[in-house]
Amino acid sequence: MTPQRVTLITLGVANLDTSRSFYAALGWTATQAQEGVVFYQMNGLVLALFGADDLAKDQGRAGATLGTGAMTLAQNFTDTAAVDAAYALALSAGATALKAPEAVFWGGYSGYYADPDGHVWEVAHNPFWPLDADGSLTLP
Amino acid sequence: MTPQRVTLITLGVANLDTSRSFYAALGWTATQAQEGVVFYQMNGLVLALFGADDLAKDQGRAGATLGTGAMTLAQNFTDTAAVDAAYALALSAGATALKAPEAVFWGGYSGYYADPDGHVWEVAHNPFWPLDADGSLTLP
Repeated sequence: MTPQRVTLITLGVANLDTSRSFYAALGWTATQAQEGVVFYQMNGLVLALFGADDLAKDQGRAGATLGTGAMTLAQNFTDTAAVDAAYALALSAGATALKAPEAVFWGGYSGYYADPDGHVWEVAHNPFWPLDADGSLTLP
Repeated sequence: MTPQRVTLITLGVANLDTSRSFYAALGWTATQAQEGVVFYQMNGLVLALFGADDLAKDQGRAGATLGTGAMTLAQNFTDTAAVDAAYALALSAGATALKAPEAVFWGGYSGYYADPDGHVWEVAHNPFWPLDADGSLTLP
């Protein structure tokens, strides 16, 4: 079997400087930056920004038009005020509003925004899913 | 600032049973399954499968056609044989081959496949990025 894990998330981006500025405005610090690629240390995994054309080529399909939106990266928070703050900060950094945070049917509180390339982030509070001390998530 | 973390990755899928069978064939066990959504415990975060139409609606844009491919989820392994094994297992489970694993310019070994909905996974060995004991990745 293949281990049940994710070690790296790579976002294909139209303009590396634009995307890097967006994530910097959220308060994020790049851990490594090389020619054409930026790496952020996350909670036990790494997030990368990489040119979408380069990503298509790397994936073995140079020239392909890559889509976005069918995958959500979520950040869970310990309370609704932190969700509101994260959403407001993203919009002030230039994110596209998709859904303002609100109470949702499953008993939590959730909003969505899109980054400069259309990659979708959810910001949420789930009272049934407490976070570990380091911000990681272990299902109850 | 917003914490630098990802707690949940949600893949929008056309058919939950098809996707669930695919990931089961990789040897993955669902930790929780509810009506219309399946959760897998990963390394400090959770992977979810959720209907693409439901995801678009949840994102505040019901009816939108969501794209795939511009985001890669990567699994790193400690050797190239494990990369080959993971790639072969994915193809045997019905994945679409994008690029067979091969030695790449940055000194590692990497391949790509797409899951039943076009979500892209990279399987890789990076000799410069050793994995933690639990399979998590901390940048050197």
